[in-house]
Amino acid sequence: MERIPFRATTAASSYTELRLPVALLLDNIRSMYNVGAFFRTADGAGIERLLLSGITARPPKNAITKTALGAENRVPWQPVSDPRSEIEALRATGYEIAAIETSDRALDIFEWQPRFPVCVLFGHEVDGLSRDLLELCDTHVRIPMLGLKHSLNVASAGAVVMYELLRKYKTLYCVTD
Amino acid sequence: MERIPFRATTAASSYTELRLPVALLLDNIRSMYNVGAFFRTADGAGIERLLLSGITARPPKNAITKTALGAENRVPWQPVSDPRSEIEALRATGYEIAAIETSDRALDIFEWQPRFPVCVLFGHEVDGLSRDLLELCDTHVRIPMLGLKHSLNVASAGAVVMYELLRKYKTLYCVTD
Repeated sequence: MERIPFRATTAASSYTELRLPVALLLDNIRSMYNVGAFFRTADGAGIERLLLSGITARPPKNAITKTALGAENRVPWQPVSDPRSEIEALRATGYEIAAIETSDRALDIFEWQPRFPVCVLFGHEVDGLSRDLLELCDTHVRIPMLGLKHSLNVASAGAVVMYELLRKYKTLYCVTD
Repeated sequence: MERIPFRATTAASSYTELRLPVALLLDNIRSMYNVGAFFRTADGAGIERLLLSGITARPPKNAITKTALGAENRVPWQPVSDPRSEIEALRATGYEIAAIETSDRALDIFEWQPRFPVCVLFGHEVDGLSRDLLELCDTHVRIPMLGLKHSLNVASAGAVVMYELLRKYKTLYCVTD
């Protein structure tokens, strides 16, 4: 597969050519502030696009803008009415499908060796991802939790995952200016 | 220096012995939701303690609890009235002092080789860290930004930094069960 040259700083005009080959599917994210936070961080990490399914709010919404600060107008996104079909379509074009979920089969994110391009799924703030979506995933990935709580805020988890994928991608395919 | 054995999962009763040797100094953080988010992620990443200075709100506050979800009662924290003196005291006991700030001298976080223990400074959501605190730091660290915006939300930046430090610490000193 042809790899996109990676540069840590890019001219605005060439930004669309330099996205990280990572899509995020946000299924049933309850809070619009969390959706906006995903947009802002996705812009920073150069994420390819966001796929919004279930109850996840779509732009334009004031509550999304409040935390996205305009990133919702720059990061490509698309509504997804049938996430199962979308996942199968992405897999058919070569994407690894990974769920961020603490499950028995989950790999520690730091030990996960993703096969780019990757589509990463995030689910509901309390209930997580539905069983039927989890079963469709090639990989389950967990973020190590050292404290007494068993989860991070979903947007914080998103930030950890996006930048860890950027780090892994740079390590594998870095093209410096 | 004696290293704390690292375990990705720890019994609650021994949690205090297994903290990552990383303190965070939050100076002039405006939003209590951001402060709460720092507590929640700090619990997950096993951060040693939070130091709260300037206008940064201190627990107990309902707005902190709303995003910390109780982590503010588990992660050690202390108010700091004079951050300059606190930084010098930490440095005198062996801490590297690192600012998260995009400056001319900033290292990419993925290329930074911290010398644990580390104290990491985060500043105001809009204005960042004050010049006098920046000048006191051994290291400036930046998070790569590929998009058009030039910053992340401070709590998202915190999540990226905390987990990257956990990853680096595990790589250096991992003790597996």
